[in-house]
Amino acid sequence: MKIALIQQKFHKTRKKTIQKTINMIKEAKLKGAKLVCLQELHTSEYFCQSEDVENFELAKNWQKNKRIFSKVAKDNEIVLVTSLFEERTAGLYHNTSVVFDSDGSEAGMYRKMHIPDDPAFYEKFYFTEGDLGFKPIQTSVGKLGILICWDQWYPEAARLMALAGAEILIYPTAIGWFDEDLKEEKERQLEAWVTIQRGHAIANGIPVIAINRVGFESDKSGVFDGIRFWGNSFVVGSQGEFLARGSDNKEEVIIVDIDKKRSEEVRRIWPFLRDRRICAYSNITKRFVD
Amino acid sequence: MKIALIQQKFHKTRKKTIQKTINMIKEAKLKGAKLVCLQELHTSEYFCQSEDVENFELAKNWQKNKRIFSKVAKDNEIVLVTSLFEERTAGLYHNTSVVFDSDGSEAGMYRKMHIPDDPAFYEKFYFTEGDLGFKPIQTSVGKLGILICWDQWYPEAARLMALAGAEILIYPTAIGWFDEDLKEEKERQLEAWVTIQRGHAIANGIPVIAINRVGFESDKSGVFDGIRFWGNSFVVGSQGEFLARGSDNKEEVIIVDIDKKRSEEVRRIWPFLRDRRICAYSNITKRFVD
Repeated sequence: MKIALIQQKFHKTRKKTIQKTINMIKEAKLKGAKLVCLQELHTSEYFCQSEDVENFELAKNWQKNKRIFSKVAKDNEIVLVTSLFEERTAGLYHNTSVVFDSDGSEAGMYRKMHIPDDPAFYEKFYFTEGDLGFKPIQTSVGKLGILICWDQWYPEAARLMALAGAEILIYPTAIGWFDEDLKEEKERQLEAWVTIQRGHAIANGIPVIAINRVGFESDKSGVFDGIRFWGNSFVVGSQGEFLARGSDNKEEVIIVDIDKKRSEEVRRIWPFLRDRRICAYSNITKRFVD
Repeated sequence: MKIALIQQKFHKTRKKTIQKTINMIKEAKLKGAKLVCLQELHTSEYFCQSEDVENFELAKNWQKNKRIFSKVAKDNEIVLVTSLFEERTAGLYHNTSVVFDSDGSEAGMYRKMHIPDDPAFYEKFYFTEGDLGFKPIQTSVGKLGILICWDQWYPEAARLMALAGAEILIYPTAIGWFDEDLKEEKERQLEAWVTIQRGHAIANGIPVIAINRVGFESDKSGVFDGIRFWGNSFVVGSQGEFLARGSDNKEEVIIVDIDKKRSEEVRRIWPFLRDRRICAYSNITKRFVD
């Protein structure tokens, strides 16, 4: 099965950015992709660099964005993983992935469960924690375990999706460096981000896809310079082996072939699911064992 | 804090092997190690390549082995992580790590929780699943989260140790290749083994240590040729970054300095423990969500 990852920049306006996304999806379609995965909050800049109530206006595009990408999925006959700013009601917002099937129908929705809050990533201000749990979305190309960015750092999220039958894990992402960070720290961060996700593939015997944005986006509040999104979108197989990896600064349509049968082979030679000590895991649901 | 990993071969007899271990521990002591970690089942060959009731005789050394290594810990004034074949009673055996403090006292014990059973790794025949849970062992050099080999593949085990306060994860191991496997498959397996453990360091913000044996050990039953243990003992820091890594075929005393304060710094910049969605994790204790 051919999969495309769309790694892109924010092009100053919502309109231009969506147009660029659509062009890249057309390119992916021409190259044979059946499933196209977009990065986190792909219709806008990463607006969480500062806390500004004006940014909630962006969520007013929620229904419009859904209609646009439903049509894009249908026009290109592809399954499409989007990442949108959801307005659920006035004052209640989520960081939500909507998955459209190749006929344009809404296959399902995942609301980001783990919400970060760090300097320049003030997501707890904008997004309420997801309340749909860790449920894979059934599509015509398989059961997709959609998780979003900060979820990447939680083995629990990956495991729960796998236990619920996810055949692939897909992480729309917005992560980057501060230019002032030391080179060594930048390398450690990028490498850790890749490594922990490869670990999820290995632990669960399924492929993992991460799609990250590129480009520099300044901090409008002026507190920080801004974030340089580090790209490096990638696909790994069921043993965590690299199948594709993007650059750290270029817009790219990354096409990769995934062999879904490989997961079953790997799970037979590495039968980790067989030996889980579920009776001894109950402390996982505690904050800390003290 | 200086830590030593003893990566070694089986030297044909228990006596010679233990003597080699003791010599390497003395070397580690001379180099300033406060904590010395041994590989899985270090007093014998990896006898689980075939199912043979005669091998239970090896567990008869359980008490004797404990006395020997208690004395070694005391003589060298080091905290010592051992890995022994435990005879609990006739017909009931465990794969057990006993940790001795630097005065020779028994600091605690961990019984391997996840037991593999794959061709040439017939551990379910020999070892009953551990029943002590995932409890770190308090020693004079800190709280050690001891896990053993197959536990490596389970993010739950690492998380539970971290939630119970482990400051370091330590994995005595016996893992290797079959010579007849393809080069690419060998590389994927070694890389996966390293990667998933680096993932545990990252997810939990603590260092991870893995100690693996080297050398070729033939399959006495003659079904397979044998296992070539791949060494590659390593230490990674709290962001999964390599601090030390051994060769794939040489006996080595690997010395590494660990900065325990670094874990707290990393957990402050990457506050993963803060954002766990514990109310949404209950399915982790299920075999599968169907």
